[in-house]
Amino acid sequence: MTNAGVPNRENAAARAEEPARQAMRLHPFYRGKIETGIKCAVRRMEDFAIWYSPGVAAPCRAIAQNPAAADEHTNRANTVAVISDGSRVLGLGDIGPLAGLPVMEGKALLFKYLGGVDAVPLVVDLHDADSLVQFALAVQPSFGGINLEDIAQPKCFEILDRLRAEASIPVWHDDQQGTATVILAGLLNALKVVGKRIGDVGIAFIGAGASNTAAARLAFAAGADPARCRVVDRGGILGRHRTDIERQRGEFAAKWRLCEITNTEGRIGGPAEAIEGMDVVIACSTPGPGTIRPEWLRHMRDGAIVFACANPVPEIWPWEAAEAGVAVFATGRSDFPNQVNNSLCFPGLFRGVLDVRASTITDGMCLAAARSLAASAGPAPTADRILPTMEEWEVFPREAADVAVQAQAEGVARRTLSWAEAHAAAEAVIRRARAIVADAMQLGHVAPPPT
Amino acid sequence: MTNAGVPNRENAAARAEEPARQAMRLHPFYRGKIETGIKCAVRRMEDFAIWYSPGVAAPCRAIAQNPAAADEHTNRANTVAVISDGSRVLGLGDIGPLAGLPVMEGKALLFKYLGGVDAVPLVVDLHDADSLVQFALAVQPSFGGINLEDIAQPKCFEILDRLRAEASIPVWHDDQQGTATVILAGLLNALKVVGKRIGDVGIAFIGAGASNTAAARLAFAAGADPARCRVVDRGGILGRHRTDIERQRGEFAAKWRLCEITNTEGRIGGPAEAIEGMDVVIACSTPGPGTIRPEWLRHMRDGAIVFACANPVPEIWPWEAAEAGVAVFATGRSDFPNQVNNSLCFPGLFRGVLDVRASTITDGMCLAAARSLAASAGPAPTADRILPTMEEWEVFPREAADVAVQAQAEGVARRTLSWAEAHAAAEAVIRRARAIVADAMQLGHVAPPPT
Repeated sequence: MTNAGVPNRENAAARAEEPARQAMRLHPFYRGKIETGIKCAVRRMEDFAIWYSPGVAAPCRAIAQNPAAADEHTNRANTVAVISDGSRVLGLGDIGPLAGLPVMEGKALLFKYLGGVDAVPLVVDLHDADSLVQFALAVQPSFGGINLEDIAQPKCFEILDRLRAEASIPVWHDDQQGTATVILAGLLNALKVVGKRIGDVGIAFIGAGASNTAAARLAFAAGADPARCRVVDRGGILGRHRTDIERQRGEFAAKWRLCEITNTEGRIGGPAEAIEGMDVVIACSTPGPGTIRPEWLRHMRDGAIVFACANPVPEIWPWEAAEAGVAVFATGRSDFPNQVNNSLCFPGLFRGVLDVRASTITDGMCLAAARSLAASAGPAPTADRILPTMEEWEVFPREAADVAVQAQAEGVARRTLSWAEAHAAAEAVIRRARAIVADAMQLGHVAPPPT
Repeated sequence: MTNAGVPNRENAAARAEEPARQAMRLHPFYRGKIETGIKCAVRRMEDFAIWYSPGVAAPCRAIAQNPAAADEHTNRANTVAVISDGSRVLGLGDIGPLAGLPVMEGKALLFKYLGGVDAVPLVVDLHDADSLVQFALAVQPSFGGINLEDIAQPKCFEILDRLRAEASIPVWHDDQQGTATVILAGLLNALKVVGKRIGDVGIAFIGAGASNTAAARLAFAAGADPARCRVVDRGGILGRHRTDIERQRGEFAAKWRLCEITNTEGRIGGPAEAIEGMDVVIACSTPGPGTIRPEWLRHMRDGAIVFACANPVPEIWPWEAAEAGVAVFATGRSDFPNQVNNSLCFPGLFRGVLDVRASTITDGMCLAAARSLAASAGPAPTADRILPTMEEWEVFPREAADVAVQAQAEGVARRTLSWAEAHAAAEAVIRRARAIVADAMQLGHVAPPPT
């Protein structure tokens, strides 16, 4: 996108409305975004004697004898469930499963188009952690992986932790791991731009929800020093003084852990105090503008890095951050430079996970994906280019291969693939997914949008 | 299919192996039969701001305000869940959910290719009726309908009955309603061939499982007289004397009901005694050959009609039935004339159900589908042509329109469509589904089968 396309102080609000306007026009035109595709040959009706009764009984018997044969005889190993209860959809809150369906269909579209991964939206009328865990465990025979989406905290933590322990297929919560991975990728490059090392910087995490809790964990895994960092939620800066969190440490275990390991100086206050003297701000909090004030950023160290990830409007506008002296600035929006975009992660990461039949997705694999994305931005990142964009589709096979290799190194892969093999396989399947859409539009199976 | 393609006494066994041989070769080649298709335009990456965040928030909000808007903004209204626990897969018994997946994928393939219906295989690791009911209720926000498949009796009865009462979307158990509908269609035409009226004939139902229990209920709804009919299970002919069934009448309510209304003469015995003196035999029992003996059929009335529906081998071979004087003979196999093929029913029926947003699928709608199929075989059915075949694809839009009109007549439809409108809509969507596959093969997105 050229600079001419970047919104400014004058047109930002109007431009922010445009995708919503188009969405309300085009969703009813297409009546949804995904459908069932047929991937086997149908030459004549007799073929159904192979694909269905009586011939299909033979593959069924083969799987009954050897469960691993399901990967050969079905599409299971390439299929992911996108499970949501609709309790925290985008910035809209608890709008319920039915109203969350457009997001999950969109997710399935991105899975296929960017990663060649088949995904099934499963919005469910279940509301407690245990029911959601039981549901996800029950559908395992149908899927090669599970992507949890838009589930409110704190239940999302318990659900992910329990499923990672109890499920036999990889389980991922995109709002935790996905966002954290992309933030880390951007952070690694932003630090290069300002010439600092991750172990030396102080990071203020603004917001302690699913995304930022995971972003902190992953940043620490990548070498950031918790003692130099601060996390702030609605109740103030986290620390051992936060008895309100300590009382709920059963439910909010990860948050209490942050109280224990960060803010060793015992600082008290709100976001302003949390930001003061820090090198980096990572905000996943309330949509702005005005959530983060420019004057707070003036008290950061030189070479300040700010991630303002709230959607649809970042915690602070880019021009405000620039005026406050911020050196590198990122948001969740596609119409500003440096988009922290989950779609950079999950399609490529799952491509790699599925291709080596990984049994789980470790933090090490998230780190590998983050480093892959950081490298994909180019050898010399700049303040306006700390992350690649979705347009650069070679990002995804590279990420898939990097994750596939890491899974094997950690011993969680069930198939052996070299980097080159994993990359070639991923590239072929993604190319095919994109070509199918292009051809469907060309042939009129997908109509052009009405003018 | 020409007569030259019909197996005979000599080659039947060898021919029966061929689909299985091809299935074992081609399933691993394609690694499954369905994938995620993309049905909306993707012109450039900026389109994802419409299909996903931030634009997608607008359709989410619209659905939160008005749940019916989900039908406009998503693919839900065209999507059916194919749910199975794998407890009674084809003739293979309880092979479990994973081993049942190839069948459910095949079902999804048929739903799309024949009916333009998007279907999602959900094989689940749940084993009691209540868990399966709760699962199906929980996934309702994702789907416009539910197709239960290959679930053992008696739990399948409880599951269907409870879901029909508790679910807000139509629920169908293909092994019950689907098979029964196609049998009835064939029976209506077979009776024409032999010049008898349904109200006058005696029917022996051999087997009292899910299919035949439903076949009896639907035949009675179509005018057959229960008092003239007999049902036989492993314990003998059903009747008020069957205290073994009476003791389990809680679980086997439908079966006990058959004990009360059929066999008013109180006849005792096995299949031979049940068949004696009857006009029609409808067998959905143990695969043959030899389950039904030719000598039993010699004691039927003139113009005998026999449905031998066990798969993969019918209860008696066609040449044996012919020698025993049977006038009209049908099986479940595609390589004999008169295939009782579930695939004639569910794709067209669901097409109609979804197109008028029916809230349920009544026996009246099954009757409408059966009459539609009977009519599709042509104005003058013959002994070798009592049912249309899958090749005759105009069968499906006609069935959809007939079902859509019936749903409106019974007041269970939420949309109004004339027969012509329903037919045109169904024809367009089915044509498109078939064209997409043909084009995918043409373009190489679906590879040709290896030679």
